Amino acid sequence: MPGIGPRTAQRLALHLLRQPEYKIRLFSEALLNAKSQVGQCKTCFHLTAGEQCEICLNKQRNQELICVVSESRDLLALERTREYKGLYHVIGGLISPMDGIGPEMLEISSLIKRVDKANIKEVILALTPSIEGDTTSLYVGRLLKPFTKVTRIAYGLPVGSELEYADEVTLSRALEGRRDLD
Amino acid sequence: MPGIGPRTAQRLALHLLRQPEYKIRLFSEALLNAKSQVGQCKTCFHLTAGEQCEICLNKQRNQELICVVSESRDLLALERTREYKGLYHVIGGLISPMDGIGPEMLEISSLIKRVDKANIKEVILALTPSIEGDTTSLYVGRLLKPFTKVTRIAYGLPVGSELEYADEVTLSRALEGRRDLD
Repeated sequence: MPGIGPRTAQRLALHLLRQPEYKIRLFSEALLNAKSQVGQCKTCFHLTAGEQCEICLNKQRNQELICVVSESRDLLALERTREYKGLYHVIGGLISPMDGIGPEMLEISSLIKRVDKANIKEVILALTPSIEGDTTSLYVGRLLKPFTKVTRIAYGLPVGSELEYADEVTLSRALEGRRDLD
Repeated sequence: MPGIGPRTAQRLALHLLRQPEYKIRLFSEALLNAKSQVGQCKTCFHLTAGEQCEICLNKQRNQELICVVSESRDLLALERTREYKGLYHVIGGLISPMDGIGPEMLEISSLIKRVDKANIKEVILALTPSIEGDTTSLYVGRLLKPFTKVTRIAYGLPVGSELEYADEVTLSRALEGRRDLD
């Protein structure tokens, strides 16, 4: 399991073994329940207990704006900003030929169909600034451009950081991505 | 001295005391020489041994582009990218009313005069994304706008980072600063 090394694993295992049997049973059932009840939203592929997720069902949100993320955890990070009011599309990973992940293994064709059918004014690509993220942005962007405006989130200096400690690539991107002072 | 705690200080002091006297004399003279010979470039206020720094003297560089940085160490960071080919202006700090640093204590009026006199096509503000940096960018930007185009470096996700671990303010800035996919 991610973030659990051999020592922590041993501590957790011993802790569980010290519990009474009925507690272990409850825990196991809770896990099975979670697995059987949590599925993917049929529209945006975010985790949900129903057919559609709460974000897709919320008509208060901007129905003309879709933000594309790799995983549900990225969606949750964007939700924490409380700035974004549009919808999402969780493609479920990034294109990575090295790891054998091609575009057909991701929710990209469902995204294109969705944008084609609905009246979408803008798709924001919020993928991580890496080779895989850039490749995926480029691929998805080309497919989407005939249908709608496509933007990507800004790459540059994180807030509160010092120029001096930024790596060269980030500084280059920040220079290249400079914008008019508002 | 920055980065030197009590233990390192003691180790350095003891090491110096173990050296023969002539070495200590050479070291002291080197320090005094450095102090007496290194001054500020009269054009851009970067550190230099001469009247003007090597960057200002280099006619290969784009003479119509000025990048504004807070300190010489930020200039050195930008030079390491090998991307930027213009000139610089080192203002020597950031406006910070809390610390009693007003605009008149920085090399801002010299910047305005410089931009007014020379044929500058664009000034890039490369200040740190913080309250002080933003205040200074706003202040300098307003003064410069009558003379030339003013831009600022991009704030957003640093290259190689994960959306999931970005703080809310950086994510908000990255969303807000989104740009057309090229």
